[in-house]
Amino acid sequence: MAIITLTTDFGYKDHFVGAVKGTILSSLSEVNIVDISHAISPFNIQECAYILKNAYRSFPEGTVHIVGVDSELSPENEHIVVQVDGHYFVSANSGVISLITSEITPEKVVEIHLPNTNSGSFPVLNVFVQAACHIARGGKLEVIGKPFDSLKELKEFEPRVSNDGKTISGNVIYIDNYGNVVTNIQKSVFEAYRNGRDFELTARTTTIKKIENSYNGIINFNLERNQRKGPGDALALFNSAGYIELAIYKSDLNSVGGASSLLGLNYRDTVTINFL
Amino acid sequence: MAIITLTTDFGYKDHFVGAVKGTILSSLSEVNIVDISHAISPFNIQECAYILKNAYRSFPEGTVHIVGVDSELSPENEHIVVQVDGHYFVSANSGVISLITSEITPEKVVEIHLPNTNSGSFPVLNVFVQAACHIARGGKLEVIGKPFDSLKELKEFEPRVSNDGKTISGNVIYIDNYGNVVTNIQKSVFEAYRNGRDFELTARTTTIKKIENSYNGIINFNLERNQRKGPGDALALFNSAGYIELAIYKSDLNSVGGASSLLGLNYRDTVTINFL
Amino acid sequence: MAIITLTTDFGYKDHFVGAVKGTILSSLSEVNIVDISHAISPFNIQECAYILKNAYRSFPEGTVHIVGVDSELSPENEHIVVQVDGHYFVSANSGVISLITSEITPEKVVEIHLPNTNSGSFPVLNVFVQAACHIARGGKLEVIGKPFDSLKELKEFEPRVSNDGKTISGNVIYIDNYGNVVTNIQKSVFEAYRNGRDFELTARTTTIKKIENSYNGIINFNLERNQRKGPGDALALFNSAGYIELAIYKSDLNSVGGASSLLGLNYRDTVTINFL
Repeated sequence: MAIITLTTDFGYKDHFVGAVKGTILSSLSEVNIVDISHAISPFNIQECAYILKNAYRSFPEGTVHIVGVDSELSPENEHIVVQVDGHYFVSANSGVISLITSEITPEKVVEIHLPNTNSGSFPVLNVFVQAACHIARGGKLEVIGKPFDSLKELKEFEPRVSNDGKTISGNVIYIDNYGNVVTNIQKSVFEAYRNGRDFELTARTTTIKKIENSYNGIINFNLERNQRKGPGDALALFNSAGYIELAIYKSDLNSVGGASSLLGLNYRDTVTINFL
Repeated sequence: MAIITLTTDFGYKDHFVGAVKGTILSSLSEVNIVDISHAISPFNIQECAYILKNAYRSFPEGTVHIVGVDSELSPENEHIVVQVDGHYFVSANSGVISLITSEITPEKVVEIHLPNTNSGSFPVLNVFVQAACHIARGGKLEVIGKPFDSLKELKEFEPRVSNDGKTISGNVIYIDNYGNVVTNIQKSVFEAYRNGRDFELTARTTTIKKIENSYNGIINFNLERNQRKGPGDALALFNSAGYIELAIYKSDLNSVGGASSLLGLNYRDTVTINFL
Repeated sequence: MAIITLTTDFGYKDHFVGAVKGTILSSLSEVNIVDISHAISPFNIQECAYILKNAYRSFPEGTVHIVGVDSELSPENEHIVVQVDGHYFVSANSGVISLITSEITPEKVVEIHLPNTNSGSFPVLNVFVQAACHIARGGKLEVIGKPFDSLKELKEFEPRVSNDGKTISGNVIYIDNYGNVVTNIQKSVFEAYRNGRDFELTARTTTIKKIENSYNGIINFNLERNQRKGPGDALALFNSAGYIELAIYKSDLNSVGGASSLLGLNYRDTVTINFL
């Protein structure tokens, strides 16, 4: 059964998501519609890219992903389908695709042209659903679009490595449901420069000298409970998406707080690693 | 595969939605359950109607819509099924159906009578699911209910047109995820009275002289970027649901604000159009 | 079609839920994935248990329930599958299962052992999905785990009955979407001690002398509307989950308030019943 995923900034209250699903089901009776997120901050391409990048690869090849963030048609924001990494993305040419698949060259890109279609103020409903259903039915991209070679490229904030290789300076790119603070420093970059050296990771007033592979990596289970570290302690982690993340063990933003609130870290703040 | 949609004020945390879905799946193994919204403000019939009205038509005919807002059985709030516009609504007789389908006469209305069923404090689970599954299986309405001719009618706030046809005075009926402010003035009503005249739309201290067909209708893409209007500018729009809407271009309620916060507009506030 | 449910503290914004669903669909093309809740308060086992306990029984036997709260592997938090009441729970050994099924003895418990699997910081994705898909495909528990006899038992706060049988003293265990306050006093316990006596239920400054079977049980529909109780009035109820609940008729936490805010009741607060 074909799979169509939805990643939007529509929220969970309005009729938008329901209308999109109804339109898909009116066109395709056998289809698996999966919500990735409808809680993207409005018009936030970076946030959309982080979430979709870390979700799409879990889906089987051939999955069609509708990207409903900042999707109004304009001379500078074409409607496109990008075939990349075995997946199909139906999106506006907002740059989001380049953030999702920065290391992979698209296999095919087309600009959507559907006859007698007015994209209006709800292009996801009026255009993207038609394109997605066509692909989900096994249709060719050439039927709904023409070749397109102006895929917009946005650059992520990249961590900077000092000339002497002693410092990596990155930024906060995402704060998750637990208040965990995700940086743009990938494990692969960290390991490439580390060369076995000790290091200090600094974020505002917090300094951490070890990076864990799981949240409870900071807990020594051989100690008695009252002698252990535990809930409320800060740690650094290679998270499941491959980035260095700052976390508070067992945090809850609505009660005790999380890394974002307790360490005072916001989107774009600097995180520095000094090799010793 | 039969489709059953859910529109409720249950929220996304409690067990209510899960219990309803489990009960449906215990009765029907092949069914597509689609969430329209579970974030209706508690007991808010008007909000429920606005959302469901703008979502249900996207679904194929024959879809069964469960309406789980203010659904406790009482002598004044019967449990009913309304067949209208090719769709089935399983609901309480709260007036919500008349707001959803004000211009369409129902094809059939029955009051639900299920033997050995106690609707109690969770009628959606105990009654509506049974009725919906019966219909989804292709069962007749007559089997689960008896004819009912007391469908409650609620009147929407309608815009008022002055006797001289110079003024349309409407109200805010919904504020969406972006803070966009939806009025009850439909495009068809506006066009019927306009007769090609210029006009001024006024909402509190904001005056707008043009109504766009897309949010970026206010942007002149021929100008250099720094000379254009852009994020933060107010506009009026014929929205995808056919109503006049006030919006801020690329708004975000959690950061820069939206039309509701920036223009100071709340539910029920007045929006006036003066033809010149 | 097999059913896999998800109950987590992942929230609705991050990529976690999407990644889990994609992984399930990559393994099983025909499966019904149902969200029970992703809004459990982070690491809150009690809340998770209350919600899952009241949802799982609505699903057909054979359903696989993934419990994604506090699931990191440790020497004190093994990964297990519990077969109980005809259902399968894939969970950490956090004690949550004992809270869900306190009155039922599990049919089988295994500790999950999957070769070449690193559970890391995202065990739901890396371990639970594999286990759940194996079971959903009809696989035997013995293939993915070995017998386990150390199922952690947590005790719920139980209501206390005074020696003279005159008083039941309970606590608030959950506050729902409407602000309704759920106590741990079950209808069966109340009825067992009542013996037909009158009673007073006291919670802070509120005293109630009757327990309803539906929210509108406090309304006398024979009276004229302006003479009736109605929105804003407090009541006690045997709720659909079988517990005594304090509610405000037609409450809305975001406008008029609910029982939690209007009666000043929080999680763990005391509710007392005195038989007269």
